[in-house]
Amino acid sequence: MRRRSHWAWGWADRFPDRDARRAIGEQVRAITSFDVKDVTEPVALDAITMPAPRIDAPPSLAAITSIDHEDRALHTRGRSYRDVVRGFYGDFASAPDLVMRPRDEREVDAILDWASSARVAVVPFGGGTSVVGGVEMDERRETYAGVVSLDLGAMTRVLEVDATSRAARIQAGATGPQLEAQLAQHGMSMRCYPQSFEHSTLGGWIATRAGGHFATVYTHVDDLVESMRVVTPRGLIETRRLPASGAGPSPDRLMLGSEGIFGVITDAWVRVQVRPTFRASASVKFTSYERAVDATRAIAQSGLFPSNCRLLDQREAMMNGVAMGASVLVLGFESADHPLEAWMERALSIAREHGGESEGATYRSGAGSADDAAGRWRQAFLDAPYLQSSLVSLGMIADTFETACTWDRFATLHAAVVRAVRDASARVCGAKALVSCRFTHVYPDGPAPYYTFVAPATRGRELEQWTEIKRAASDALMAHGATITHHHAVGRLHRPWYEQERPSLFEHVLRATKRELDPAGILNPGVLLA
Amino acid sequence: MRRRSHWAWGWADRFPDRDARRAIGEQVRAITSFDVKDVTEPVALDAITMPAPRIDAPPSLAAITSIDHEDRALHTRGRSYRDVVRGFYGDFASAPDLVMRPRDEREVDAILDWASSARVAVVPFGGGTSVVGGVEMDERRETYAGVVSLDLGAMTRVLEVDATSRAARIQAGATGPQLEAQLAQHGMSMRCYPQSFEHSTLGGWIATRAGGHFATVYTHVDDLVESMRVVTPRGLIETRRLPASGAGPSPDRLMLGSEGIFGVITDAWVRVQVRPTFRASASVKFTSYERAVDATRAIAQSGLFPSNCRLLDQREAMMNGVAMGASVLVLGFESADHPLEAWMERALSIAREHGGESEGATYRSGAGSADDAAGRWRQAFLDAPYLQSSLVSLGMIADTFETACTWDRFATLHAAVVRAVRDASARVCGAKALVSCRFTHVYPDGPAPYYTFVAPATRGRELEQWTEIKRAASDALMAHGATITHHHAVGRLHRPWYEQERPSLFEHVLRATKRELDPAGILNPGVLLA
Repeated sequence: MRRRSHWAWGWADRFPDRDARRAIGEQVRAITSFDVKDVTEPVALDAITMPAPRIDAPPSLAAITSIDHEDRALHTRGRSYRDVVRGFYGDFASAPDLVMRPRDEREVDAILDWASSARVAVVPFGGGTSVVGGVEMDERRETYAGVVSLDLGAMTRVLEVDATSRAARIQAGATGPQLEAQLAQHGMSMRCYPQSFEHSTLGGWIATRAGGHFATVYTHVDDLVESMRVVTPRGLIETRRLPASGAGPSPDRLMLGSEGIFGVITDAWVRVQVRPTFRASASVKFTSYERAVDATRAIAQSGLFPSNCRLLDQREAMMNGVAMGASVLVLGFESADHPLEAWMERALSIAREHGGESEGATYRSGAGSADDAAGRWRQAFLDAPYLQSSLVSLGMIADTFETACTWDRFATLHAAVVRAVRDASARVCGAKALVSCRFTHVYPDGPAPYYTFVAPATRGRELEQWTEIKRAASDALMAHGATITHHHAVGRLHRPWYEQERPSLFEHVLRATKRELDPAGILNPGVLLA
Repeated sequence: MRRRSHWAWGWADRFPDRDARRAIGEQVRAITSFDVKDVTEPVALDAITMPAPRIDAPPSLAAITSIDHEDRALHTRGRSYRDVVRGFYGDFASAPDLVMRPRDEREVDAILDWASSARVAVVPFGGGTSVVGGVEMDERRETYAGVVSLDLGAMTRVLEVDATSRAARIQAGATGPQLEAQLAQHGMSMRCYPQSFEHSTLGGWIATRAGGHFATVYTHVDDLVESMRVVTPRGLIETRRLPASGAGPSPDRLMLGSEGIFGVITDAWVRVQVRPTFRASASVKFTSYERAVDATRAIAQSGLFPSNCRLLDQREAMMNGVAMGASVLVLGFESADHPLEAWMERALSIAREHGGESEGATYRSGAGSADDAAGRWRQAFLDAPYLQSSLVSLGMIADTFETACTWDRFATLHAAVVRAVRDASARVCGAKALVSCRFTHVYPDGPAPYYTFVAPATRGRELEQWTEIKRAASDALMAHGATITHHHAVGRLHRPWYEQERPSLFEHVLRATKRELDPAGILNPGVLLA
């Protein structure tokens, strides 16, 4: 069986060997003139020490409980830059005492019952891909008798498909590929492709309000959920399966983004799609980023609803090998119903009206059309996180963050964010970071910009240096009216800024909800609420 | 100043005179062969008695307080069938003690402070158009020292317009025409047209999750809200203005649908539109309702996103003068950006593939194009509630209800609902009701059907008879997996069925939220929570 890396992103076999990483280091040096370090190796799995489990599972749950060394290492944390660095250096001191893999709702319920009475913290665990400290146990580990990582990995089935309504009921532990493979048997697809798609799970997407495939309309998984089942320490919450309702505040919307602090999502009815047969794609170059932003805004406000509307700034365009010295707007439309010429031609007209240059669109039809440029882009997109692990082994800081803001604020925000990251990097790393930006999603009233930055770290001081840069970036987001996260979630990492963003009375509401549903306070302590 | 009727829908001058109503009665008799009664007159305003106010406003709030007879009558309840009948017969026993009209947030806060300490119930009041008992005071009136109707009618301004992001900050008391007139000065429009548009307010729309103009995508006002300010008895909740966020559960979504039990919405940033310059409309006839439903579903799943996609069953089509002996799908597209031929032609193709017959589409462009068939339809739509008052004076039961369900359930649900209403009417009124259905909104996974029914009542027993029919209809909705409301809200009227639909643990969450934000329990008691 293919193994997941105990410290790095994704599959263990995807971590390049020493020579390959050295070559990456040479490339980075050439592009950045950063002081790239010599490659070093992560602490091997068998060299890792972790505290012995402090608790035993009750006999009734023994069959689904693991204290395996590798299992515990894999469940110690997610895959933020901070996590990868700690893993690289072999720090697994906060490993969960036990890993439990319930096979059904009844077993989830039994775990929560036992944990509530035994004062054992429970961290729901889907794909373990959190980049915000969502699945680790924080400093309060010692205030609990034990910590369980509740892994949904044994609940991966598509339970029902309603082809008429284009919806499916899917267990929360299904990863992207697992659920897509099962839906494909019915000619369906969920088409929710967060960057973590390969490993992350439906339950994780819902709990963290993941951002999906579509740049417009159905941007968050929120818009795809019909209903869900959530096992809380107080019992089951099952919402009614509906396309829409206006009956009181939406219970689904309270669970969307609850990040495991109220209950464990066990399955959900979600909207699915018929696989698209028509596709249109185009790219448009702009010499002026400002005009490119205006063009993107005009398209976002046009009502054309492109499935892809990704504005890459010059640096992103260069790094993606798309263009040199220009910003590039990547446009895509897809449909299982109709040819897309009218949509795409109008979008290209808007782009050209704003000074964009394009060689025109490519149109494809037929079922096989995913194995092309769009497919390659998607693969490159899914592969991107793997690069981070190599950069860590080269002593680099490499991270991403994302946000959303209204259009009127974007220019000021963008300038402030880039400046904040570069200045912080210069201060703590001795060199200005490389910062690039793309839009992942766009709304009529604003974009969701996604930032990537790379800076040269000092070995052994990476986390301290990274913390300063992350703080500067996050402070800039807050100061300019943006959100601390459009689709990466809050977890433990973003909590200080989330506390600024969230109305203070809403914190009281969340606490009251928590007391109601999780009276013993065992679920994912430290997430969302301090 | 034009007066609102103290008992009927809308403007007092719109209630037809005796002869006109008699003519309506003749028409109804001809169509239905119902035993239509002779017209009678409502109890006149000055003949109404109501209990004397039990409380005085504190001196600091005296300037914004009214105990005027007409004012109190107008604030006694909303405009459900039950309300109109009670008003017609002069029952104003549950009138609020005081009507208060705060001019700003500070005064809202002062009212809630005083009311919390004086154990005075506060019923937030926008346009007073609730059809679900949302603005009346229920049986618990006597458990409070007094009741205040908190009318937002002095807070009607558009405060800011952000033309770049196409958004505006608007005070909650602005009615549809008030906010549209102000937005028009900036070339903008909110394009949120619930049937109550003429009188209902932005705050009311948000509090009740009103359904708007667009049949797809931006169906509920939920999708138009960027942020809001809500004054609660514990203080102000102000959410951050963003196009989207993934930071924890959405605080806006907890307030959307809260129906005045957590706080008073004072203003909101909402998405606005540039007025459309391209319009396309068409109607398609179907001899088979089943095939018409399939066609509508296919269009809802096509990704074409029509702004209007209203399927009228045979009876609705007949009553609207659109067609005899056929179901009619009314299709509309609109855009401020592009001509709509490709969209409309594909939608018509889909409809024809399902057996629909159409004379083709009408395309118009230019700013003046609202003064046409679409405009006439809208006026007829806004006028429809006025007919109810005439029918009440003729001793008829005439009411509407609406829901949403997934496509796979619609046929069974529809049959059950129609049967339930007709059977109940036969049982209690001695004749099967006339029932018609249209779709107001459609989703890829299901429609929002809207039902109208008319039955002959027995004078003096109308409410008893109507209650039986309403109960039968609502029970059928619950039994077949639909929602008790897609956009009419819950109020007091729908609470028994809402309690079936809402997960029981979510009731605990709402109660905990209520304790947190309204510890004295003064806000709109009886709504959502028993």
